[in-house]
Amino acid sequence: MAKTMKAAVVREFGKPLVIQEMAIPEPGPEEIQIKMEACGVCHTDLHAAEGDWPIKPTPPFIPGHEGVGFVSGVGKNVKTVKEGDRVGIVWLYSACGQCVDCLAGQESCCSKAEFGGYTKNGGYADYAVADPNYVAHLPSNVGFVEVAPIICAGVTVYKGLKSTNTKPGDWVVISGVGGLGHLAVQYAKAMGLHVAAVDVSDEKLALARELGAQLTVNARTQDPAAYFQKEIGGAHAVLVTAPSTPAFAQAIGMTRARGTIALNGLPPGSFPLPIFEVVLKALTIRGSIVGTRLDLAEALSFAGEGLVHAHTKAEKIEDINDVFARMHAGKIDGRIVLDITGKHSAAAVAKEGELALV
Amino acid sequence: MAKTMKAAVVREFGKPLVIQEMAIPEPGPEEIQIKMEACGVCHTDLHAAEGDWPIKPTPPFIPGHEGVGFVSGVGKNVKTVKEGDRVGIVWLYSACGQCVDCLAGQESCCSKAEFGGYTKNGGYADYAVADPNYVAHLPSNVGFVEVAPIICAGVTVYKGLKSTNTKPGDWVVISGVGGLGHLAVQYAKAMGLHVAAVDVSDEKLALARELGAQLTVNARTQDPAAYFQKEIGGAHAVLVTAPSTPAFAQAIGMTRARGTIALNGLPPGSFPLPIFEVVLKALTIRGSIVGTRLDLAEALSFAGEGLVHAHTKAEKIEDINDVFARMHAGKIDGRIVLDITGKHSAAAVAKEGELALV
Amino acid sequence: MAKTMKAAVVREFGKPLVIQEMAIPEPGPEEIQIKMEACGVCHTDLHAAEGDWPIKPTPPFIPGHEGVGFVSGVGKNVKTVKEGDRVGIVWLYSACGQCVDCLAGQESCCSKAEFGGYTKNGGYADYAVADPNYVAHLPSNVGFVEVAPIICAGVTVYKGLKSTNTKPGDWVVISGVGGLGHLAVQYAKAMGLHVAAVDVSDEKLALARELGAQLTVNARTQDPAAYFQKEIGGAHAVLVTAPSTPAFAQAIGMTRARGTIALNGLPPGSFPLPIFEVVLKALTIRGSIVGTRLDLAEALSFAGEGLVHAHTKAEKIEDINDVFARMHAGKIDGRIVLDITGKHSAAAVAKEGELALV
Amino acid sequence: MAKTMKAAVVREFGKPLVIQEMAIPEPGPEEIQIKMEACGVCHTDLHAAEGDWPIKPTPPFIPGHEGVGFVSGVGKNVKTVKEGDRVGIVWLYSACGQCVDCLAGQESCCSKAEFGGYTKNGGYADYAVADPNYVAHLPSNVGFVEVAPIICAGVTVYKGLKSTNTKPGDWVVISGVGGLGHLAVQYAKAMGLHVAAVDVSDEKLALARELGAQLTVNARTQDPAAYFQKEIGGAHAVLVTAPSTPAFAQAIGMTRARGTIALNGLPPGSFPLPIFEVVLKALTIRGSIVGTRLDLAEALSFAGEGLVHAHTKAEKIEDINDVFARMHAGKIDGRIVLDITGKHSAAAVAKEGELALV
Repeated sequence: MAKTMKAAVVREFGKPLVIQEMAIPEPGPEEIQIKMEACGVCHTDLHAAEGDWPIKPTPPFIPGHEGVGFVSGVGKNVKTVKEGDRVGIVWLYSACGQCVDCLAGQESCCSKAEFGGYTKNGGYADYAVADPNYVAHLPSNVGFVEVAPIICAGVTVYKGLKSTNTKPGDWVVISGVGGLGHLAVQYAKAMGLHVAAVDVSDEKLALARELGAQLTVNARTQDPAAYFQKEIGGAHAVLVTAPSTPAFAQAIGMTRARGTIALNGLPPGSFPLPIFEVVLKALTIRGSIVGTRLDLAEALSFAGEGLVHAHTKAEKIEDINDVFARMHAGKIDGRIVLDITGKHSAAAVAKEGELALV
Repeated sequence: MAKTMKAAVVREFGKPLVIQEMAIPEPGPEEIQIKMEACGVCHTDLHAAEGDWPIKPTPPFIPGHEGVGFVSGVGKNVKTVKEGDRVGIVWLYSACGQCVDCLAGQESCCSKAEFGGYTKNGGYADYAVADPNYVAHLPSNVGFVEVAPIICAGVTVYKGLKSTNTKPGDWVVISGVGGLGHLAVQYAKAMGLHVAAVDVSDEKLALARELGAQLTVNARTQDPAAYFQKEIGGAHAVLVTAPSTPAFAQAIGMTRARGTIALNGLPPGSFPLPIFEVVLKALTIRGSIVGTRLDLAEALSFAGEGLVHAHTKAEKIEDINDVFARMHAGKIDGRIVLDITGKHSAAAVAKEGELALV
Repeated sequence: MAKTMKAAVVREFGKPLVIQEMAIPEPGPEEIQIKMEACGVCHTDLHAAEGDWPIKPTPPFIPGHEGVGFVSGVGKNVKTVKEGDRVGIVWLYSACGQCVDCLAGQESCCSKAEFGGYTKNGGYADYAVADPNYVAHLPSNVGFVEVAPIICAGVTVYKGLKSTNTKPGDWVVISGVGGLGHLAVQYAKAMGLHVAAVDVSDEKLALARELGAQLTVNARTQDPAAYFQKEIGGAHAVLVTAPSTPAFAQAIGMTRARGTIALNGLPPGSFPLPIFEVVLKALTIRGSIVGTRLDLAEALSFAGEGLVHAHTKAEKIEDINDVFARMHAGKIDGRIVLDITGKHSAAAVAKEGELALV
Repeated sequence: MAKTMKAAVVREFGKPLVIQEMAIPEPGPEEIQIKMEACGVCHTDLHAAEGDWPIKPTPPFIPGHEGVGFVSGVGKNVKTVKEGDRVGIVWLYSACGQCVDCLAGQESCCSKAEFGGYTKNGGYADYAVADPNYVAHLPSNVGFVEVAPIICAGVTVYKGLKSTNTKPGDWVVISGVGGLGHLAVQYAKAMGLHVAAVDVSDEKLALARELGAQLTVNARTQDPAAYFQKEIGGAHAVLVTAPSTPAFAQAIGMTRARGTIALNGLPPGSFPLPIFEVVLKALTIRGSIVGTRLDLAEALSFAGEGLVHAHTKAEKIEDINDVFARMHAGKIDGRIVLDITGKHSAAAVAKEGELALV
């Protein structure tokens, strides 16, 4: 049996990742080992590799928190997961289990959490170790490439939608129809909401309509705030997935009185909150960050029922630096997923591709 | 019986109000007439008189939406109020009763609402007409001067506190201990919350402690965010009553994960919302504007039980321009209440004053 | 113009209704007159005609609270409705507008409410007067016969489902697939819920499956509690529409921990609540009665979008006593709707029938 | 060091407990050992000893789930608790941490939970082992005898009150002023509620008034339903702590429309739920069972602030069979707490007694 594995490693912030051979990590008594099949590439991975955020990971490290595969090793004290299970290593690698947030079932706010592909090695590798209490449990009927984005992008928008406090029949605007937004349109529809979408690309808006959006606005050519106030009296909620500060400011104007603007994207900096409007219209602005294990299970359940499909493109792990370059340039549609085993690319992809676009 | 009355009238924006005799307004078939005893002076009255806001009243008009007195006339179709009732004319003079916000019991967001002392003549006069379905019903055991601020300032902070979604035992920071804030401290305490207060005046903080605040911070000499994170792990909620943009920004840092910042004050302009912090900590920022009739009844109920007392000073209606000048200069402590009948000033005030500070 | 109209009148409890000519009622200044097109027959009408309930109507009176038609007369003070509008006279004929329940936007609990076809004359007639603030506003694209049951049966189950506090993806069991239940299955599905159905008729269960139920149990041949515990770990909620006491008791066992049992049906008597099970599983049992005007507007909105269709059969008003007899005997499928104008029966029905079953 | 300890053991259902010497239990790697100071006697212990409930413990076993003391041993993998900590062994001895209820922060509904003094040995002994993740963390300023009842009776009524969805200013009726009820009155008051109490003993009602109840009714001499409807228009909520079936039925009538009846007591059998009243008044009946770790921490926090005091009487562990006999006969006021070390009885009790009644 192999003792080493291939991994894409950040050795220094801002430098290309190095594809290298290294020892396969062995699980401790409370851990499991995952043989990776695929791993989605999230914008956060790019931020990690460039050391963009105030709290940084420590190189060398392996990025990737949409890593999915089979359990290949089980620590001796582990009871809840067994070899062969289909699982995923996620952003919320683990949490303390004892703080107020954890006890409240809101562990995504735990201040002692560890993060997959950030403070712990992630899924850009043949193997990874994980905490069995926090891994995603994947539905058996969704391909690895397609399911990968659900465990981060999917749960993020699903939780964001839940945090809008809308109910079936209400109107929600999805602002930004990219990796997050194209999933948000589908979740919103499955949740019985009326869906509108805003983007600056007609192509993405066409996708939104195909996925169920009833109204779409190209913010480059039309004022979405005026449009939604006129057409639907303002939306009950807006989910901002676009990592763009103007999108945030615009969202305020799209909303009706007592509406909610939920923030999913993480652009740098701040945006000017117009106090008068927020107070007079009694608006709610709310941040939402990934989701809990329960949110994750629910998000996967929608995918397992075929109600939500990620649009993906499988690429080789060796091409990660090229993927990052295109991501930097804003040239990626849908979600790139690294095909770790190679079984999901080429001919194989054709088959998975079908699944992905049913 | 007198056919004319004295009123303080805004004839032109930015000019002094004119104290003048004018016809006593008669109630229509669906209206009532109120013989005014006292009327609180709210910052909004100053904005109205100066035409500060985008949607302006139309001069000439009589300001005042904390006007309290006895019902002195009843339109022939009115069934819910009778002569002699103690009532108040409020900011939410009336609402349409048929829109989604009204039907939801959230009439303070009705887009067809009329506003007391703004789009309708208010309480700076011997008499006013009002909509019997929207007037405040005053408890019998609270003096007119003391109760006046409850029907605007009181209900505003009470609703603001409700909108924080805190529960008894949680920590709330009251930011700003002025006309709104000194009432907020008392409501928060009556609601079983742990109360902290932030201001830039040691005198106001001393008042806050006297009214029940357990922690106080002078933001001029200490960083409230750092202080609350250290002492209580961050507050569950912050109620921003100070009409100061820095106070809004500061409030974000005072809050623990999943906390709420409720906005009551109406400073001009916007404040920079730090997206990263709002998303990572899953914070909620929420505007809150006065309250519904139900909020108002509840707010008055707390006052009727003696759990909340407004700190007031009675002045003559003839002094309104001087009051506005002091308000402009930020030189007012507590709440100025116009003594319309003259019975509440001088010796009379001494008695009411006792009530007010029990 | 005609001065008299035809109506079906309860002259004495327990006696057949009399079809008689009587004066067309004229609207007062705050009222409207409706020219009736159709009126659904609800079980409550039968209870009314027999004087079954503790609080009884006063004969002679005209039953019917699913009466739909065009506004044919408008009182001089009415501003919110105009001649020709498509409206419906509903169970909640009017409410006081001033009590705590009304102010809370929960007017269906108003203790001073009037009831259509019960304390006020209803829709079994060519004309009725109504309170314009409380009538149903009907979508233009749903036929009168099909929309009639929505304004009582539809809103009742829709509000019942809302009161279960379930969210999209949860499991709800609809207990009883009759006039209420067949609509409940459709609303639940439109709300993103997983739907199961229980009845004692295989035919009705087949209808439930056709309308979207994923699981069905015939309670005559299988224990639904055991079945749902095994298949789905218990439902998140059960909506009991069957007016049968055993159905209520059974519902407790179908539910998972922390689940809700919402009661819509109104069988006489009480059912034994097993305290130990309710406490240990932290269950919620909740009564739900029709809905507010907002609930009604939302319920109609789902119908207007074609997501919910009532299964109806149009009959002549002259046959009302026969309809009641069949209802008494439990021999009615779907909903009988009285065709007041005669335009909706015979050939006309064929057309409406298509609509009804799209 | 001692190798054996004294314990009160149930050897056979329905037979007296045997006070015996037995080996001190040693904690496993994930466990802790507690040196017990005191242990409250709960009605559940009596049910356990008599094998009353459908799911029974397995003799021999040691009852007691209000056991409080110091951590005296720490398993090698334990990180969250250290020797000398003041902790308590509770009813929710442990939960699985992975089911939907656990992930939702509602672990008191976990179907794989273990129970202190029931499925695991409890606090009627010098030592017990416990799961460090589930023990109560006791405030340093409350005596052991006084704090013991808080960790079961206290959290039970606190969670029951939370589950009523009342808000400060609302009226809650506490039905039954015994071991649970006398704590409920205090929690309700600290939560800003208006409190009424119902019992059949004037002495207990006097205690309720002393603890803050504003209205009291002796159900032997007055109809509480009629009284509360007349005085306060019905309560917003009723918390039923009395283990008496009539009390449950009575609670329905005490409640206003849209009110909640929360069930805390566990009398055998069922009570007849009047469907018509529950539906027409849109009532909620809800079971509530102990509380989660977060509820427990909050309940202890109120006690630590001196807002809630248990009325206790310390007795010797050797007298347990006599205590059970008196409990059987309904002759116990407040809460009996076993003084395990003997330091809390006699003279010592005098001192604790002061604490308990400050």
